[in-house]
Amino acid sequence: MSDSVSAIPTFKEVQKAYLRIRNKVHRTPVMSSQKVNQRAGGELFFKCENFQKVGAFKFRGATHAIGQLSEEEAQHGVATHSSGNHAQAVALAAKQRGIPAHIVMPGNAPKVKVNAVRDYGAEITFSESTQEGRETTLAKVVDKTGATFIHPYDNPDIIKGQGSAAIELLEDRPGLDILLAPIGGGGLMSGSAIAASGLSPDTTVIGTEPEVANDAYLSFKTGERHPVQSTDTVADGLRTSLSELTFACIQEHVDEIVTVTEDEIVEAMRFIWERMKIIIEPSCAVPVAAVFNGKVDIGDKRAGIIITGGNIDLDHLPWQEN
Amino acid sequence: MSDSVSAIPTFKEVQKAYLRIRNKVHRTPVMSSQKVNQRAGGELFFKCENFQKVGAFKFRGATHAIGQLSEEEAQHGVATHSSGNHAQAVALAAKQRGIPAHIVMPGNAPKVKVNAVRDYGAEITFSESTQEGRETTLAKVVDKTGATFIHPYDNPDIIKGQGSAAIELLEDRPGLDILLAPIGGGGLMSGSAIAASGLSPDTTVIGTEPEVANDAYLSFKTGERHPVQSTDTVADGLRTSLSELTFACIQEHVDEIVTVTEDEIVEAMRFIWERMKIIIEPSCAVPVAAVFNGKVDIGDKRAGIIITGGNIDLDHLPWQEN
Repeated sequence: MSDSVSAIPTFKEVQKAYLRIRNKVHRTPVMSSQKVNQRAGGELFFKCENFQKVGAFKFRGATHAIGQLSEEEAQHGVATHSSGNHAQAVALAAKQRGIPAHIVMPGNAPKVKVNAVRDYGAEITFSESTQEGRETTLAKVVDKTGATFIHPYDNPDIIKGQGSAAIELLEDRPGLDILLAPIGGGGLMSGSAIAASGLSPDTTVIGTEPEVANDAYLSFKTGERHPVQSTDTVADGLRTSLSELTFACIQEHVDEIVTVTEDEIVEAMRFIWERMKIIIEPSCAVPVAAVFNGKVDIGDKRAGIIITGGNIDLDHLPWQEN
Repeated sequence: MSDSVSAIPTFKEVQKAYLRIRNKVHRTPVMSSQKVNQRAGGELFFKCENFQKVGAFKFRGATHAIGQLSEEEAQHGVATHSSGNHAQAVALAAKQRGIPAHIVMPGNAPKVKVNAVRDYGAEITFSESTQEGRETTLAKVVDKTGATFIHPYDNPDIIKGQGSAAIELLEDRPGLDILLAPIGGGGLMSGSAIAASGLSPDTTVIGTEPEVANDAYLSFKTGERHPVQSTDTVADGLRTSLSELTFACIQEHVDEIVTVTEDEIVEAMRFIWERMKIIIEPSCAVPVAAVFNGKVDIGDKRAGIIITGGNIDLDHLPWQEN
């Protein structure tokens, strides 16, 4: 048994994580729409993490991981590098525990994202925008402050926290035939699949990915971890590669991975905005697109979809890009 | 007592209307947001009629008015002229009763709206885009078919149906200090104010309007009905004038009317999209803008806002217009 396999969180651990954070996160609603079901040909249930604090499921994992730090660790604060939802999640979760957060952001990060992180009271350090530049700057920050690095997905406590969304969904809609989530770094997919394995073992768990960033699909198919080759997908939350840990979780608990095209993602996203009147980010249009385009056999089945978040630049919507 | 005053629906009639339609409409959720409350300085509760069938509160009134037709009237169908939410509402409500709907739409109506009405099985007749052109065409359609004209607001059964949204809101959040709604033709405002007068007489009822389409404000202030002068507001649902009936309802049951600028409307709308991740149309950003810009003294109070709908052209968002 490799280290990664032995580190796969158990269902009991995911359950315990949920009990620890349940009073700190929103219990988001599960929504559905007759018009969407008509198109899908089955019943879809959307777990609306776009209504979560910071507008994304990432707050669940960050709250859990930061809550698990010892008092001594906590007093030195936490650190991460991110320009996305994880940055805001760590910033707010640290604020709620009353400890410092150090966030490394690329110098070219959109001002609106920088301001959001700053509004939560985090200290921002700007870095070069390359992966190497971010990591070097983060190492310096950790070195100087003694803060604990909170990785966005390669961290068992993050995975356990992310699993709480699927627990709530399966409590509210027991016995779903299918559970769908997008795969970026794999933290949400891992936690969701572990939750389903314990709460609803007959549920088929399906991961979804953009065709142009299909590292998880290839890894799953070949049994060997592939890094993501292209970051040129509209689903900006899914541009990361699996870690050994999330790959092990997915191999163990996910039944299938399917991919969708960029056009399918944008069209599905717009359909949900128009018919359901909720703002969803491109990443969570990926599983919706998989259903709409026959990549998943939905039949007369009941399927749950984790809507990951609703953070998007309202000045540049993907169907408006030139 | 004038005819209009004697025709003002009573609270009991609004309650009865609610009982008639409650199984035909969605009981929409009441949402709130810490970030929005922080900005408002009080607690705001959004009655989310953007999640209603056809994406707008209009379905309540149409369902009630069409449900009240006698069998004989019903078999000849219903007719109206509208290019907006009322057209879809009448089309779907007629479909649900199993009777024909004849909708007069201007020849230049956006294709997406025409298709939506057609998808509900309504028969569409195109007219010139002037008010006169629409009315002439409607008269011909009514003449030919014997259909009953369903006016969008100058109809007691419509007003009673629209009041059901406020009933649900005040059931879910009893004892609100303030109830806010936008005023277009005044149907929603009338029904909401009558509902509050019976269910929650201590609630202050405030109407809100765009400054550039302030016919209700002027009428309320002067005691004489003013027609709307300009239709040049981003709040496309509020370009209509009060009728004698809705003016009488508003004089009787509304405490105050305030106005907001176009910039305030667009900014409030975007704020709600960004922070609450829900799609609201410009019309219902009007009461939100009134709160955000100090037109309503919100203090530490609890205020309910009717979110009228979420139907908007996603290719042309108001903050993107050149």
